[in-house]
Amino acid sequence: MTYDEVVLQPAADLVELTRALVDVPSESGAEGVLADAVERALRAAPHLEVERIGHSVVARTALGRAERVVIAGHLDTVPACGNLPSRLVDGRVYGLGACDMKGGVAVALHTAVTVPAPTRDVTYVFYECEEAHTERNGLGRIAAERPGLLAGDLAILMEPSGGLVEGGCQGFLTADVIVRGARAHTARPWQGVNAAHRAAEVLRRLDERDVRDVVIDGLVYREALSAVAVRAGVASNVVPDACLVTVNLRFAPSRSPKEAEALVRALFPEYEVLVTEVVAGALPGLARPAAASLLARLGTEPRAKLGWTDVARFAAAGVPALNLGPGDPSLAHTPGEYVPVAELRSVRAALGDWLMMA
Amino acid sequence: MTYDEVVLQPAADLVELTRALVDVPSESGAEGVLADAVERALRAAPHLEVERIGHSVVARTALGRAERVVIAGHLDTVPACGNLPSRLVDGRVYGLGACDMKGGVAVALHTAVTVPAPTRDVTYVFYECEEAHTERNGLGRIAAERPGLLAGDLAILMEPSGGLVEGGCQGFLTADVIVRGARAHTARPWQGVNAAHRAAEVLRRLDERDVRDVVIDGLVYREALSAVAVRAGVASNVVPDACLVTVNLRFAPSRSPKEAEALVRALFPEYEVLVTEVVAGALPGLARPAAASLLARLGTEPRAKLGWTDVARFAAAGVPALNLGPGDPSLAHTPGEYVPVAELRSVRAALGDWLMMA
Repeated sequence: MTYDEVVLQPAADLVELTRALVDVPSESGAEGVLADAVERALRAAPHLEVERIGHSVVARTALGRAERVVIAGHLDTVPACGNLPSRLVDGRVYGLGACDMKGGVAVALHTAVTVPAPTRDVTYVFYECEEAHTERNGLGRIAAERPGLLAGDLAILMEPSGGLVEGGCQGFLTADVIVRGARAHTARPWQGVNAAHRAAEVLRRLDERDVRDVVIDGLVYREALSAVAVRAGVASNVVPDACLVTVNLRFAPSRSPKEAEALVRALFPEYEVLVTEVVAGALPGLARPAAASLLARLGTEPRAKLGWTDVARFAAAGVPALNLGPGDPSLAHTPGEYVPVAELRSVRAALGDWLMMA
Repeated sequence: MTYDEVVLQPAADLVELTRALVDVPSESGAEGVLADAVERALRAAPHLEVERIGHSVVARTALGRAERVVIAGHLDTVPACGNLPSRLVDGRVYGLGACDMKGGVAVALHTAVTVPAPTRDVTYVFYECEEAHTERNGLGRIAAERPGLLAGDLAILMEPSGGLVEGGCQGFLTADVIVRGARAHTARPWQGVNAAHRAAEVLRRLDERDVRDVVIDGLVYREALSAVAVRAGVASNVVPDACLVTVNLRFAPSRSPKEAEALVRALFPEYEVLVTEVVAGALPGLARPAAASLLARLGTEPRAKLGWTDVARFAAAGVPALNLGPGDPSLAHTPGEYVPVAELRSVRAALGDWLMMA
């Protein structure tokens, strides 16, 4: 079989579908073969309207329901790491992307073709380049070119979350705190000012700053500020005249990017602070009727999503969003990643039941 | 004129000789043409016995004097930086290596050929690769292959020292202080230990440590410990699990390398300390009769040499050594380096007078 002939059988067994998705390589930028196969599978379902945008595929029901739900997952993976093809061992599907997030894609694709008459209209989005630079992100491209396709009352991102609902996501900010000094020969350091020595104060403040909890919709978003890089050094006989401390702030979705920036600047008022990236988070929106009924169906407690995910792209488009997918998020991007069969089945069952609830 | 035909006239004007030496490029590893010219000039002096070792040249008087003095200078320079050919402006010779140390080489070469009957025997050493890796150093090669050639009661290195005697030199030690932590995602930093934050304590100790003065032969050696590099960083969303602080200690020549290492380890008892390089300094030996008479002739106060120089190679061979050369050491390796004509002449006069003193 060549990749030209990849045929998915999305209505058959969920485990076989997950393995088939894993076994078609789809590293970021090379999702074409997999996108073709997914598109063919969706077009075979008469209840879906299908559109192709780059290597992303959007499939929608058009039943005129009062509510519309968006269910999204990315097709791409990080590069392979000796973890292909897939293996089924002890109730787990192992292999590249099994956890992040072909297990979730399998659940969405299976649901798409086997639930022809949901009580809420559904827009399924299978998109490219989530693991690549943000500018190539397929969901971002759809939001820019065809924003109407992402409209809905609630978005569910199949991000691995252990089968639990993780509401919204935190924002993040990366900044360089620049400590200045003056160069000198290390044989006469008193003629200069050692920027690395002065950076002790910056690192001490980071070390002493506690995490802060922000509660939204009952979920606890835990804000934290970390040094992620320290760089100083000219030569082994030179007192360095600059020390760069790169910090990463994770902030609650109730805080704006501007507020996050002010928070970092207030901590380092006497240093240069250069913000290199700041991205807003996403509010959980769990009070929305669609979210509330999904939570009721699941019967588990939701928790806050602390890492940033593409739910923020929905939030930016005005759609409350949550993360719900099979797989342990801490296994993402590890060579030994896997998705438990039990979670594949439980998330599929919950989604299907919810979409058929009156 | 091609370089094959470079003819130096070392007995003629000192300024012209300095300019001629500057105008023959001799970046480390490419000293051959200059070494050839210096060798020819020395062989033309009947009072000198000349030997060639690689691109280093040794010339000796053999007058059976009670004392022998070694006068040494390196032929090589750092790479050119738009500062060739030489220029004579306002009483200064500008150009690559004018300060470090072709001015000093000119003084030594002029002295070698114009003082045929010194009252102390003299060994002149013009050597290669001082600005390169220590393993290529021409003086080191002579010390290893022909140690007898460096024997003497006192060594004078033509290191730029503003025409003053700078006694001995300090040793230096470079070490990595390694602070360990545990990786975590920056969205959950409390699951790890931030090594960069922990490094604040290492940098604080460096910042609070004062310099320490050690007096030897009346000269003040000022010991200092500096961070010269800080390195931490895995990715912008990862709590770093290691932070490496590279420190450079300059220590008085009365302290052994082992004592220097113990000093650094005592400051950081709870961290891994990896010594990457440690080199002993050189005692000034200014009480030696030869040194005392030179100082008396100069009539200026000696001072301690704080940076490390090749005088330490003489010290390791049991020969007390001092630095004495024209030029401001802070101009070494700068594009605008120059040597003042007045210092060329004063150092040449002092050396010549001293070598002819009864």
